[in-house]
Amino acid sequence: MKTPAISQRGEVMPPSPIRKLVPYAEAAKKKGIHVYHLNIGQPDIETPPQILDAVRDAHFKILEYSHSAGNESYRKKLVEYYRRYNIAINYTDVVITTGGSEAILFAMMSCLDPGDEIIIPEPFYANYNGFAVEAGVTIIPVASYIDNGFALPPIEDFEKVITPKTKAILICNPNNPTGYLYTQQELDTLRQLIQKHNLYLIADEAYREFCYEGGHFSALQLQGVENNVVMVDTISKRYSACGARIGALVSRNKLLIETVIKFAQARLSPPTMEQMLGEAAVDLPANYFDVIKAEYKSRRDLLVQLLNKVPGVYCPNPGGAFYAMAKLPVDNADDFCKWILEDFSYNNTTVMLAPASGFYSKPELGKNEVRLAYVLNKEAISAAVACLEQALVEYNA
Amino acid sequence: MKTPAISQRGEVMPPSPIRKLVPYAEAAKKKGIHVYHLNIGQPDIETPPQILDAVRDAHFKILEYSHSAGNESYRKKLVEYYRRYNIAINYTDVVITTGGSEAILFAMMSCLDPGDEIIIPEPFYANYNGFAVEAGVTIIPVASYIDNGFALPPIEDFEKVITPKTKAILICNPNNPTGYLYTQQELDTLRQLIQKHNLYLIADEAYREFCYEGGHFSALQLQGVENNVVMVDTISKRYSACGARIGALVSRNKLLIETVIKFAQARLSPPTMEQMLGEAAVDLPANYFDVIKAEYKSRRDLLVQLLNKVPGVYCPNPGGAFYAMAKLPVDNADDFCKWILEDFSYNNTTVMLAPASGFYSKPELGKNEVRLAYVLNKEAISAAVACLEQALVEYNA
Repeated sequence: MKTPAISQRGEVMPPSPIRKLVPYAEAAKKKGIHVYHLNIGQPDIETPPQILDAVRDAHFKILEYSHSAGNESYRKKLVEYYRRYNIAINYTDVVITTGGSEAILFAMMSCLDPGDEIIIPEPFYANYNGFAVEAGVTIIPVASYIDNGFALPPIEDFEKVITPKTKAILICNPNNPTGYLYTQQELDTLRQLIQKHNLYLIADEAYREFCYEGGHFSALQLQGVENNVVMVDTISKRYSACGARIGALVSRNKLLIETVIKFAQARLSPPTMEQMLGEAAVDLPANYFDVIKAEYKSRRDLLVQLLNKVPGVYCPNPGGAFYAMAKLPVDNADDFCKWILEDFSYNNTTVMLAPASGFYSKPELGKNEVRLAYVLNKEAISAAVACLEQALVEYNA
Repeated sequence: MKTPAISQRGEVMPPSPIRKLVPYAEAAKKKGIHVYHLNIGQPDIETPPQILDAVRDAHFKILEYSHSAGNESYRKKLVEYYRRYNIAINYTDVVITTGGSEAILFAMMSCLDPGDEIIIPEPFYANYNGFAVEAGVTIIPVASYIDNGFALPPIEDFEKVITPKTKAILICNPNNPTGYLYTQQELDTLRQLIQKHNLYLIADEAYREFCYEGGHFSALQLQGVENNVVMVDTISKRYSACGARIGALVSRNKLLIETVIKFAQARLSPPTMEQMLGEAAVDLPANYFDVIKAEYKSRRDLLVQLLNKVPGVYCPNPGGAFYAMAKLPVDNADDFCKWILEDFSYNNTTVMLAPASGFYSKPELGKNEVRLAYVLNKEAISAAVACLEQALVEYNA
């Protein structure tokens, strides 16, 4: 039987970088070992019952398509939400998307053509690679480093890689995987750069509320670059509603929004029920997020403190999101992350970590780094770090 | 203020072909005119309450990501569903997608590279154009004609346009917009063609249950081309659950499924709540669909009968889906469809139709044709056709 070939695009499409470790985690579990999952961004926080109830109690008889740009009532509600963060927009600046994922893809497809280049500070969220393959665009990485907590690279490093093909800069703020929170000053430096070269600035602000010391400065608050800024957002982490697949793309560039809506029309509409959930979330009590944030902050404080006590480990204090990057006293974090699942256990437990290699495009960078998501409670975090410490001793013995 | 350019891809991305008529329909409604919407595929049938209840009554505390390929329990349930239609598959042949839309996009991206060609009998579902722009592939149309009810074009017409760049043939069966139901013999002809040229056959079977005389013959029932066939599906029309955005891609080609899962991993997961709804739908009583189908059949019979009584109108009897194409005694259906909304009313009502031009790529074809969706009850259909008849008299006066 003849078999037609897979597309080149399909061949170069990267699998999830964490995927290769999954069989080892599953094998460990089959042996009866408890695995602490510090590898994924699935929060353990309960989804607010009120917003689940908004779906449960909704009265409708037909589960209809919504508007391609999302329900007008929800788009208007989001205007109210952003106003609380001093972001002034109109509802016509908002397109509701199927998760932040679709917002990123629509942004890339609307701003860049195949062969165009997008500059992203690395390490970066691994799925940007996948969306770039789908859109046929080339990611040009600019390195950031653990030694200064992954601050924005010097603007000269961006200038060096700008070519006529450069159409956009993409930042994630606060950052996944580093947890770094960009300062207003850093955003302003980027503003000058995109203004000078007339580039798009695509800002992934999925973790906006997760800022533990300073407040968040949004790319939408930059002035004089209203037509350059495209902000992508999601309710996934904010309300522990990852499975809802509701995000948004926000821009004051009217032609860009018209273009994004054409992509939105092709796929008809985002999920209807979850838009009800997203809309209800804007009405959560004002203190809802204080409690969640306090919990994450105490987890971060504990994780960073414990990690830095482990001999040879260095973990800068991340200002936002719920990730931390740590340097381990190993040559190759990929090997170590596999070994700890396959050949190690401590009190019948082990730890699953995300090797940082999946977040870097240059293979020489981040070889001894891992990303840890503090989406487990403090007891689990303590136990997981104790386990990791023991593993490092055995691994290096 | 400088503004960065929209991508070429974004510029050529087609807007919804029905969109340009929407302002005229809205203006008519503002004048107090009732508009019969025969233009869209949003069924008026109630979503089965049992499947909405499956979401309402689900017990979970965190709305988590599902697996990228969809919940295993749902994928296994779909095996049971397809078995009822004599389609034998394994759950590992199924990837749950965000609507049939995403399944089509994933199929195009996995099977074709930018610049590759996909042959589609025209008229065809307008959003295939959008997905083709996103995937950078070229649609090569092969004309079908109203005179034989839009049967599969002769295989020589396909042979004529096959080039080294041809990678796939796409059919929609039963067809949107024509309602044509391809016969087993026609499918077998396609089987020989794809076998000979080693092409993919992408079969959009969104309307599988909507077959009013003969049964449906699925592309997945073709033998000897298991690695060539990719079937895309959706629950939207089947259970009147368009807003759920739950579809599926099914193929026995293991490498293809592995590739599709990489695209699925980039966007993390399809909506979680609606997968529960889709899973519950497989357990609807065996006679659930009989009632729905009888209702649609009686609507089709009425619509086709009434249309063919209107002087100058010809409407072949469609074997499936819930669309009919009709030839009107007008030179330009686009102009007429605008006029009937803007300058006409009858008993304070008018009709919104979809001009067929949006479904053809060759502008000389289908100029006097419209698509009618029989998603309204019989009383409304009768009134709408009476209104259309009067409009044709006035328009041609």
